[in-house]
Amino acid sequence: MQGAIRILGIDPGLTHTGWGVIESAGSHLRFIAAGAISTGTVDELPARLVQIHNALSHLIGEWRPDEAAVEHTYVNKNPAAALKLGQARGVALLAPAMAGLPVAEYQAMEVKRAVVGTGHADKIQVQDMVKRLLPGAVLKRADAADALAIAICHAHHRGTRNLMARLAQA
Amino acid sequence: MQGAIRILGIDPGLTHTGWGVIESAGSHLRFIAAGAISTGTVDELPARLVQIHNALSHLIGEWRPDEAAVEHTYVNKNPAAALKLGQARGVALLAPAMAGLPVAEYQAMEVKRAVVGTGHADKIQVQDMVKRLLPGAVLKRADAADALAIAICHAHHRGTRNLMARLAQA
Repeated sequence: MQGAIRILGIDPGLTHTGWGVIESAGSHLRFIAAGAISTGTVDELPARLVQIHNALSHLIGEWRPDEAAVEHTYVNKNPAAALKLGQARGVALLAPAMAGLPVAEYQAMEVKRAVVGTGHADKIQVQDMVKRLLPGAVLKRADAADALAIAICHAHHRGTRNLMARLAQA
Repeated sequence: MQGAIRILGIDPGLTHTGWGVIESAGSHLRFIAAGAISTGTVDELPARLVQIHNALSHLIGEWRPDEAAVEHTYVNKNPAAALKLGQARGVALLAPAMAGLPVAEYQAMEVKRAVVGTGHADKIQVQDMVKRLLPGAVLKRADAADALAIAICHAHHRGTRNLMARLAQA
């Protein structure tokens, strides 16, 4: 698409990190690629973080996104789980930032609102809307759909931001 | 020191990441260097993680440690704080692992037990013992002392591990 920007969405997790690349031009969206990075639970933590980092760096080199967006993962009541998730999330934020991409963060509720229209949508509704908004998207894993939802959310928000910047200049 | 190995200890934190390098040969320890990586609280999270990563990668290149040890940070009751800390910790584990170093993890209690002799020592006792165990150590920040304590803990544990491996072979 002409004038399109490529967005990489990342849904971080130590065992499965979803990723999805879309193109956005105005209100048009196009599916480019999506997948998940899975790390072996028998490997030690530092090795798993290296796997996530290398895979993200590799796909940034392959798909050449212009911007990245990472879900600000829901923090549940378990601090040990939050610490574990935080470690994967730190690496997920680092890889695109090291590659020089602007990295935006969105709360899960913002992602749902952008994709489905309400912050209280369930995962199935989000996945259904991702398929409708991105015809031809190949979604082998739910993590990939979630990552594409984050990319769509960023496409909407950056559009609004740019519009507001133009209105402010007018 | 002859036959010495160099150990990098890391005490991760988003605002201050302490680091310390020691040499260990048998029961002898020697202070090499220590400091802290501080990131600006006005910077965005991805940029701060890049600062931590770049600083750690740089000092690994400068001090050429053989092994690294990272504190398995105490998870308090606040999941949001645990997530934040986890992000810094993920990056602290990643940098030495990417450089090919074996990375060990130690609970705060194990560090205190190795340095002071009891898992219930306070921070001041740990810092005093670090100064006694590493004469000439320059400790500008408490984070640097904590990182050296982690390195000392690893020196003790790896010595025990090697001894047990030799006994098993005998």
